[in-house]
Amino acid sequence: MSSPKTPVHSFLVDRRSIRAFDPRPIEDETLYLLFEAARWAPSAFNEQPWRFVMAGRENETEFQQMLELLSPSNRSWAKNGSVLILTLAKMFTSHDNRVNRHALYDVGLAVGNLSVQATSMGLSLHQMGGFDSAKSREFYSIPEGYEPISIILVGYPGNAELLPEHLRLRESNPRVRKAIDEFVFSSKFGSGHSLQQH
Amino acid sequence: MSSPKTPVHSFLVDRRSIRAFDPRPIEDETLYLLFEAARWAPSAFNEQPWRFVMAGRENETEFQQMLELLSPSNRSWAKNGSVLILTLAKMFTSHDNRVNRHALYDVGLAVGNLSVQATSMGLSLHQMGGFDSAKSREFYSIPEGYEPISIILVGYPGNAELLPEHLRLRESNPRVRKAIDEFVFSSKFGSGHSLQQH
Repeated sequence: MSSPKTPVHSFLVDRRSIRAFDPRPIEDETLYLLFEAARWAPSAFNEQPWRFVMAGRENETEFQQMLELLSPSNRSWAKNGSVLILTLAKMFTSHDNRVNRHALYDVGLAVGNLSVQATSMGLSLHQMGGFDSAKSREFYSIPEGYEPISIILVGYPGNAELLPEHLRLRESNPRVRKAIDEFVFSSKFGSGHSLQQH
Repeated sequence: MSSPKTPVHSFLVDRRSIRAFDPRPIEDETLYLLFEAARWAPSAFNEQPWRFVMAGRENETEFQQMLELLSPSNRSWAKNGSVLILTLAKMFTSHDNRVNRHALYDVGLAVGNLSVQATSMGLSLHQMGGFDSAKSREFYSIPEGYEPISIILVGYPGNAELLPEHLRLRESNPRVRKAIDEFVFSSKFGSGHSLQQH
């Protein structure tokens, strides 16, 4: 249960996409729990369209290879993370090979679970949408019908003072989001809903 | 932190898509927290492509209208939930009006947050992918560029004994998922990763 002082669960509100990571490895059993959390997400037809390719820093060749898929600016700080995870969606249903309209959404649900589990264990995540998708297909022999979506950096939070100045400032900027009545409607799309906050 | 006995957070593992709901209303401040949780999800370009249309049972006309979008078999038990939420994705980026490849994934992340928050407050969710999407566009005047994705039933768990037999049995069936080495790979797509469980 959430306490009255932090009514939204702290795993959700205190999460932020940091850039200052501490380059120590994550134990296998901790990683296992991340994927176990993802595993229990719901999905349309229980299709479980999520796939992950992971590269931990203890295997330098594999870690460098995935790092190479990122833009140089992301690479500059992502190199201090512990594990990189390429997320993929299976775009066709297994039972009748039709387009799965819910594939990307369901992968999001699974990564949402993974993120909560990571935060609950003191790990941080930084998801990146910009990476070389074509090269990722080649590197990992990704078959047709699977779509690379994001690369997630996972690691322990590090010392923000060690980041270049322009990145250091971003670590503590307030996070900005739309107000609830900008995205929650009733009766009609666009009719902001004034739910009462207490 | 997770305890050794339930190493994956119970909000994730104990969640299931139930069908037995108790038809009491959910307070506004509780609903507010669900959307507040969704609000803090990360998204590509901080685009926040999630939109929600909600219909609570205290407004019978609105609740019946959204119920009508569901298939008759879902309607038979969904009528006992407290709130229906239609989820939508904004499919184009606000800054340059291009297709947002991450829209559906990001809505999944936001609903993942909403789901964890709901579970932490004793609520249950049942997400449904099968509904009349065209009719939902008409009912709620959904503009071009927004895609209806799912309808989520939210409510308090009810008495499974009151369900018809074929549904009652499904409430307690063990949940089935792929093994981790079927969806987590390293080096190459399809090369199952044997992470150690402890």
